[in-house]
Amino acid sequence: MPDFDRRREALLAAAAHVFAARGYHRTSMRDLARASRMSLAGMYYYVAGKEDLLFEIQRGCFERVRRGAEEAVAGVATPEERLGAFIRHHVVFFANHMDEMKVLSHEAESLTGARLEEVRGLKKAYVDLCLGLLAALDAHDGGRRTDRHVAAYTLFGMMNWIYTWYDPAGPVGVEELADSICRLFLNGYAAEVQVR
Amino acid sequence: MPDFDRRREALLAAAAHVFAARGYHRTSMRDLARASRMSLAGMYYYVAGKEDLLFEIQRGCFERVRRGAEEAVAGVATPEERLGAFIRHHVVFFANHMDEMKVLSHEAESLTGARLEEVRGLKKAYVDLCLGLLAALDAHDGGRRTDRHVAAYTLFGMMNWIYTWYDPAGPVGVEELADSICRLFLNGYAAEVQVR
Repeated sequence: MPDFDRRREALLAAAAHVFAARGYHRTSMRDLARASRMSLAGMYYYVAGKEDLLFEIQRGCFERVRRGAEEAVAGVATPEERLGAFIRHHVVFFANHMDEMKVLSHEAESLTGARLEEVRGLKKAYVDLCLGLLAALDAHDGGRRTDRHVAAYTLFGMMNWIYTWYDPAGPVGVEELADSICRLFLNGYAAEVQVR
Repeated sequence: MPDFDRRREALLAAAAHVFAARGYHRTSMRDLARASRMSLAGMYYYVAGKEDLLFEIQRGCFERVRRGAEEAVAGVATPEERLGAFIRHHVVFFANHMDEMKVLSHEAESLTGARLEEVRGLKKAYVDLCLGLLAALDAHDGGRRTDRHVAAYTLFGMMNWIYTWYDPAGPVGVEELADSICRLFLNGYAAEVQVR
């Protein structure tokens, strides 16, 4: 990675950490300079300002998690396995980006104007990917289940809530966590086949 | 309800709405006075200040949801049905208190000192109630499952995430939402019996 990109990535990670700890609105560019060990002027070489930083964190997250998910499900044989691959990828990605997860959740409405619209579009595309995987599973086994949006957002809740309680350094490893959530959801959703 | 209590409840509800929309730290007592249509002096007749308001919202929520859950599971025959009753009660309670849910989630660390400790204790007692219901189910059917803390927090994630997406006035009614989440979790957890 070129030096510019590497330092910019480090700045985004430091900013995500501060936003997660203090909240976006309570954080100043001075706080961010201190946390990233850059001068104020140095930071402006990488980003246009505080809202731009928040935007780049959110955009980067949604772009990377979506690209990773698309790669994770590509070439996987069955709809159920593809959904499983999606779930495991999401959990592992955000277990490794818990600051960013908290920022995506708590600061979803802190962006404004075109930046807000762009991030909403990226988020919608990612949710649509999940909805498509659920629809493929329904089509495959002829299941008529719980409202698909309810299922998708319930699944995101299971996965995203980890930022409030999970400790990657604790007794449950990231892979075990991902497998548990994957099993709980897939078993629950699979059992729904004849509900409606 | 006596007039004092009724007006105090209305103040807490108005404050929860403002804290949910603006965040605790960005909200002033003046904002809260405007939203609750009280004078500043009038507000201080009911609460000692902004942190006291946040504390009373959090304490009230945990006390009420726990008392309601204990009533909901009392007299229910099987461990699985008790867990189901707990889930449905939690979802219905918070679908009707989404502002409070957001405040509990986003402002979990905004209290300080003894108030923070007291709310943490109430929260722990409520989580312990859920863990006990899961343990009773395991004991009943001899299941050895996913780590119980993972299961409990995954369940809370499914339920609590609703504050980010659910619209009680939308196409999915509160009872249907509660039933869906209940089925998804119970089926998923039930299928785990022989996992470990």
